[in-house]
Amino acid sequence: MAEDRRQPLVVFQPSGQRGRFPVGTPLLAAARQLGVDIDSVCGGRAICGRCQVEIACGQFAKHGIDSRMEHVSAPSAAEERYAERRGLPPGRRLSCQARILGDVVIDVPPESQVHRQVVRKQADARPIAIDPVLRLYYVEVEKPDMHRQRGDFERLGEALESQWGLSRPAIDLAPLRRLQPALRAGDSTLTVAVHDGRQIIALRPGFHDRALGVAVDVGSTTIAAHLCDLGTGEVLASAGRMNPQIRFGEDLMSRVSYAMLHPGGAAEMTRAVREAVDAMLDELAAEAAVDPDDILELVFVGNPVMHHLLLGLDPVPLGSAPFPLAVDSALELEARELGLARVAEGARVYVLPCIAGHVGADCAAVVLSEAPHLSDEVTLLVDVGTNAEIVLGNRHRLLACSSPTGPAFEGAQISCGQRAAPGAIERVRIDRTTLEPRFRIIGCELWSDQPGFAEAADRLGVTGICGSGIVEAIAEMYLSGILDADGTIRGECAARSDRIVAEGRTFAYVLHRGEREIRITQNDVRAIQLAKAALYAGARLLMDRLGIERVERIALAGAFGSHIDPLYAMVLGMIPDCPLERVRAAGNAAGTGARIALLNRAARREIEEVVERIEKIETAIEPRFQEHFVAAMAIPHRHAPYPNLALRVPLPERRAAADSGVRERRRRRHGS
Amino acid sequence: MAEDRRQPLVVFQPSGQRGRFPVGTPLLAAARQLGVDIDSVCGGRAICGRCQVEIACGQFAKHGIDSRMEHVSAPSAAEERYAERRGLPPGRRLSCQARILGDVVIDVPPESQVHRQVVRKQADARPIAIDPVLRLYYVEVEKPDMHRQRGDFERLGEALESQWGLSRPAIDLAPLRRLQPALRAGDSTLTVAVHDGRQIIALRPGFHDRALGVAVDVGSTTIAAHLCDLGTGEVLASAGRMNPQIRFGEDLMSRVSYAMLHPGGAAEMTRAVREAVDAMLDELAAEAAVDPDDILELVFVGNPVMHHLLLGLDPVPLGSAPFPLAVDSALELEARELGLARVAEGARVYVLPCIAGHVGADCAAVVLSEAPHLSDEVTLLVDVGTNAEIVLGNRHRLLACSSPTGPAFEGAQISCGQRAAPGAIERVRIDRTTLEPRFRIIGCELWSDQPGFAEAADRLGVTGICGSGIVEAIAEMYLSGILDADGTIRGECAARSDRIVAEGRTFAYVLHRGEREIRITQNDVRAIQLAKAALYAGARLLMDRLGIERVERIALAGAFGSHIDPLYAMVLGMIPDCPLERVRAAGNAAGTGARIALLNRAARREIEEVVERIEKIETAIEPRFQEHFVAAMAIPHRHAPYPNLALRVPLPERRAAADSGVRERRRRRHGS
Repeated sequence: MAEDRRQPLVVFQPSGQRGRFPVGTPLLAAARQLGVDIDSVCGGRAICGRCQVEIACGQFAKHGIDSRMEHVSAPSAAEERYAERRGLPPGRRLSCQARILGDVVIDVPPESQVHRQVVRKQADARPIAIDPVLRLYYVEVEKPDMHRQRGDFERLGEALESQWGLSRPAIDLAPLRRLQPALRAGDSTLTVAVHDGRQIIALRPGFHDRALGVAVDVGSTTIAAHLCDLGTGEVLASAGRMNPQIRFGEDLMSRVSYAMLHPGGAAEMTRAVREAVDAMLDELAAEAAVDPDDILELVFVGNPVMHHLLLGLDPVPLGSAPFPLAVDSALELEARELGLARVAEGARVYVLPCIAGHVGADCAAVVLSEAPHLSDEVTLLVDVGTNAEIVLGNRHRLLACSSPTGPAFEGAQISCGQRAAPGAIERVRIDRTTLEPRFRIIGCELWSDQPGFAEAADRLGVTGICGSGIVEAIAEMYLSGILDADGTIRGECAARSDRIVAEGRTFAYVLHRGEREIRITQNDVRAIQLAKAALYAGARLLMDRLGIERVERIALAGAFGSHIDPLYAMVLGMIPDCPLERVRAAGNAAGTGARIALLNRAARREIEEVVERIEKIETAIEPRFQEHFVAAMAIPHRHAPYPNLALRVPLPERRAAADSGVRERRRRRHGS
Repeated sequence: MAEDRRQPLVVFQPSGQRGRFPVGTPLLAAARQLGVDIDSVCGGRAICGRCQVEIACGQFAKHGIDSRMEHVSAPSAAEERYAERRGLPPGRRLSCQARILGDVVIDVPPESQVHRQVVRKQADARPIAIDPVLRLYYVEVEKPDMHRQRGDFERLGEALESQWGLSRPAIDLAPLRRLQPALRAGDSTLTVAVHDGRQIIALRPGFHDRALGVAVDVGSTTIAAHLCDLGTGEVLASAGRMNPQIRFGEDLMSRVSYAMLHPGGAAEMTRAVREAVDAMLDELAAEAAVDPDDILELVFVGNPVMHHLLLGLDPVPLGSAPFPLAVDSALELEARELGLARVAEGARVYVLPCIAGHVGADCAAVVLSEAPHLSDEVTLLVDVGTNAEIVLGNRHRLLACSSPTGPAFEGAQISCGQRAAPGAIERVRIDRTTLEPRFRIIGCELWSDQPGFAEAADRLGVTGICGSGIVEAIAEMYLSGILDADGTIRGECAARSDRIVAEGRTFAYVLHRGEREIRITQNDVRAIQLAKAALYAGARLLMDRLGIERVERIALAGAFGSHIDPLYAMVLGMIPDCPLERVRAAGNAAGTGARIALLNRAARREIEEVVERIEKIETAIEPRFQEHFVAAMAIPHRHAPYPNLALRVPLPERRAAADSGVRERRRRRHGS
């Protein structure tokens, strides 16, 4: 199309998209024609205020433009009404109302972009572009007319087509039943919630600018849920609670056993988890003071057993070889199919794909959040639970396996073990000379040898030792010579300290003497050795397959991964060698991945495709897994050809190096 | 592709499709390659027996083939097992087993064709091609394998793709939950029911060759349902019962009033009709001795108020101008959304489109069955109920309207009126000289003046007069001079017969003296005049719009349309003039249309497109409707420019002419 140079030139910043338009063209219409990303829910009626822009004033030599405020029409009556009612920051205009009178440069602020990004707190996490599968559309529907008999739904379809370019979405029965009263209440205007551009799943009379979603991570121990605004990406409320299935079995395999041994047991567990989720939905809506009917979209992640139990699929086959999943693809469902009632009647559910029999949708969510498939760096993702779910690779190739760590890292099978809860020992240091320990407990910032700790301990109690505490304790025992490389507590140390005590033919280390004595027994050390050997062997197996000796980045996901100090994980030989500053706790990466899938429709196709091409390795049938496992029982491990470089530098220096590495990286990012 | 003349030539009859194939090619595979229509459910495993063919033996000069039995391989072991278990008629082979050894001509019997046609009983009705939206597929699924971790569902998808060329359908949660046990029970074989090639809605272990559907016509008075085999099209059972909504109001408008005046009234009526349908589903399954879990597809038709009440949509707007439907498009739903439980859990529902505010999905079904849109002849379709639904036109243009006939034709508002039920007078003749009547009652083949009638009357009672009876009575009263053209019962006739009696200032005709006296009062005549004038005026209005003076064919649908004698309808001036032999009772055309939509997926798109282009006329805002209505009050009517040609021939001759016309048509069809 030849440019008509008599028409005003409009340039949109920051994209730089430009074009000439007839005088009188609304800025929003110009933006749409150029494909500039400006949001609008009300369709240009000065109601939603999503389409705000700023008029840049001044000379723009690059474009040959003298951009002036008066090159845009004065605020319309509708715009003034909007400004009065909802406020409009100085310099801001509604682009649906402001019309082009002369050459202008327009700044589109980030919050006016449809695909605006939500900045994630972690500096190195990928940002989330807001583009949910569910969108709201405000429409004005033609009134019924005897001369042109068309149903209410068909006139709505025409309005969506002419006002939004949507090609006749279908409609659920529930909103269809509400259509006629809504048209009456809204005087023939309404807001419809359209899923995937294809299906109307809810509607409200008049203008209604609120669509909510919930991302749920169903863990074996805890269920975490985040209520998000699908328009802004904002987390409005979060909730967490114990998975009530715990009463049927502490860990995954005991729940599978429960299902196997009790007829109807699986159904019982399904009911329990669904009821818990439903109650959490209630809680979230109450906390954020929102209408549950605005919750239109849910995303679920969970390990395979949780995934199956949530969906009402029999988990028993997951308990024995060949561990077949009933389904590994992503699923789209309706909330009511899961018996969830505290959401809009037509709310939809997306369940992320599972990767393999023991590598679940939670791990897929970690992949989505950590995005190894977008990086050149070879990344190792580890999500430690009863099974460690392990993913290794980069943009070229990804591998996954699970490794039977057992529940030791969660404090189970440990004599004084407990879950990470107030009062649990989480940090441990042992004096290399005196062999005296100091420690910290969850709920108190002080070390046990600092003033004031005793009061805190009185209040909280020193109730046990959690996963991260046991890892540090054993690593410190090794570093201070109490433990040899085979994992034997050395009885001869009893001569140096009364902390080392005999227990039958073996010895134990007394970490705390109090109302409850906390000790690390030989059996505890063996349990952790088994667990860490399994984890290491799994990672090692994937490295073999990928043909690499070193990984470039490690992310430790999950609660345990967040608590554990990467340094001690490496001392113990839980994870392969890697520069310490490239090991990070990914926090609740599964929850974050669920939130990404909630807020961005493309992320769903992305993770489905990535999961499809991940190579699934079953450790149970890999002869090398056993070899690696045996070699990894030692502390740190006995993978001779690959010396554990991390240990060559004494600990304090390495810590300092790690810290300076982080500082260096930060400086580089924020500098020039 | 160049023909390799060294390969055997295979010709399939009756289509004549031909091709050369390597020796050893199974006949079914050859047929598939040529696009020859041969059915198979088991996918070529000699299980289903659907793919039977016959080997034609002899010289086929046209093809240059000497076709011999031995040009096809001997029966395989699998084929012999099939023949033993289920029998194979002489000369028949399973085309999946029989392999090509030399030139052959193959006859494909009609029952082996996927798109075989069901012959409808009425000679001039269009045949139904069996091609339901739901199909069964038998598959052998790869067993789970630790070396290749794929979920059960994904392996099923691979099997459907490789064995049937279906591109990965999605699956409902219910069959997904049954997948694993079904694979176990069927030793990794199963039969899946796929809806529209896209969604697995049910599955069974092993081979299962039964998919059923139900076509339901929800009338204001009665509900009729037919259970069909989706594979063969056969009607396995039929059921009919009163619509229980009758307790909320006899006719449509009284039900709308009930909904208007009673909060929750619409919901009550919705519940009532759904429960009735559910009970009928039970009844159908029991009668046909089938498993309700095999009922996978349902089709519903009904007038707009029945349509809305079934779906749970508020019918109140249909009660006042502009009479907007909540939806007029066809709908696809799940049976459970309608609360129907006596079918497979994932059973789907298709609801035909409505045409306009008073022209419902039942009328769309009549259109589908009578197919005016496929004909050059200008056809008038009339479905008489409380409203007459009228469609006029041909392949080039179709118009529709409804006309407020009121319930007189159903025997309501008539002093001695009743529904068509045993004991009701349905046929009436009046002697032109003596003015003495004779009549027949429903449930007895004898006329009232024949020997034996008295006994039958004693048994059944002469309980009242139904719609067809009242129409004949009034027409006969007119023909015998008791009634003048204005519809006034002539008092002077009282002098000739004591059947004419005074009733205040007007007169009545005593049709039957017995335990209950049955008379036709002046008010009865007025009620029928109003009804028939409305019907005629509606048809006339459409004729005006179409610019025609004569229709070429008339089909009277519905129960009343089936009972009424077209001759009397014309005498009375209910319907426009048309050669008598071109007027026919279409029987339960709505039910037939529903059955067509059940058995043929293309018919659904067809009726949706036809309904889209039907021009909807609202009689209430057409000034000419009033004119026509007033003119049509007379008997037959006063449309002066269009003389009522039908009446020019005395009745007995016309009847004979009509009969010979029918014979003539039959002869032409079956003759050379």
